Amino acid sequence: MQRHFHEELEALKQTLLAMGALVEDQIRRVMRALVERDDVEARAVIERDREVNAYDVEVDEKCVELLALHQPTAGDLRFLTTAMKIVTDLERIGDQAVNIAQRVLDLNQEAQLKPYIDLPRMAERAQAMVKQSLDAFVARDTDLARRVCAADDEVDALKEQIFRELLTFMMEDPRAIPRAIRLILISRFLERVADHATNIAEMVIFMVESRMVRHTLA
Amino acid sequence: MQRHFHEELEALKQTLLAMGALVEDQIRRVMRALVERDDVEARAVIERDREVNAYDVEVDEKCVELLALHQPTAGDLRFLTTAMKIVTDLERIGDQAVNIAQRVLDLNQEAQLKPYIDLPRMAERAQAMVKQSLDAFVARDTDLARRVCAADDEVDALKEQIFRELLTFMMEDPRAIPRAIRLILISRFLERVADHATNIAEMVIFMVESRMVRHTLA
Repeated sequence: MQRHFHEELEALKQTLLAMGALVEDQIRRVMRALVERDDVEARAVIERDREVNAYDVEVDEKCVELLALHQPTAGDLRFLTTAMKIVTDLERIGDQAVNIAQRVLDLNQEAQLKPYIDLPRMAERAQAMVKQSLDAFVARDTDLARRVCAADDEVDALKEQIFRELLTFMMEDPRAIPRAIRLILISRFLERVADHATNIAEMVIFMVESRMVRHTLA
Repeated sequence: MQRHFHEELEALKQTLLAMGALVEDQIRRVMRALVERDDVEARAVIERDREVNAYDVEVDEKCVELLALHQPTAGDLRFLTTAMKIVTDLERIGDQAVNIAQRVLDLNQEAQLKPYIDLPRMAERAQAMVKQSLDAFVARDTDLARRVCAADDEVDALKEQIFRELLTFMMEDPRAIPRAIRLILISRFLERVADHATNIAEMVIFMVESRMVRHTLA
């Protein structure tokens, strides 16, 4: 029984990592849709959110099942309750990819305002944070989790830089305002991706060290 | 033992409701700070987020403790795992109040762009959704939960209306752009409050009916 339970936990970790890879890929694809002005790709991202949601249901059900059948305590209990929270963050990262895809479809109806440099950079950072936060979870690696929390500042700095640049575009030409606002919103959605990764990293630290980091780091 | 456990569950519900009342009050106060251009109130909201975070830790710890000590199954197990997720949403609603408070402090450094009518209305709707989603949780009331989900459309419509109005301000006068963008961001933070309430309501329906509503309603 005990061995079986640990196999189940291992399978759960693999499912969470697969879900993480999927939402990471959603971010990668939607940013490509932005840069290449590709409506088909943007719609594919929206469509593929079903797969993200299916993972959410699967992991949630599996966690409740394992809690009910094996009634774990201590570390394994914390691991399962943390997994249940992490899957919610992953699902919402998927929602941000959909939010971005919708702005991309709007943006593609007009001429491109400017070349995109900082937004893809911001997306890459946010994606890396998602991957590292999950790696930290499965390896119970608090050092890696702390690096994820620290990386959030860099993403925030990029967001501010994007905001200031787009503000000058808007000030100079009112016709640029609707496009600039959509790009600002995309930067905010990417910020939320990074925030979710930070939430996951903080939960990992809490899970391992059993103290509430997420309200003392700030 | 069993009776004791149900007393514990009752106490947990009361704590969740108290936390809900606190975050609702945070929204109410930050909107008053916006309308009355009150820096002191805005700072008080930021300061009081510690109390929200303390509740987060308290409920989370209590849920894990109850899972470990009583090893509940079926309905009680689902109730506790749902409570653990709900508390995360409540904590993030509190974060939105802080986000709004920071924009209020920025806005108070300049002249007021326009009288605020729709933003307070949007905040009232979002607040009501938070309250109703928690009432639905403690009463296991899926009808009420469904009404919360339906109310989200009204909040989205207000958000779009606010956006269009502020867009005209920006088009007419580029000097209005920074203030208008802060107000647009406030509307997005309120939208996130309503989204969190909707998430809670969907989890309530899932808890009671044990099927994943949140990915089929959309």
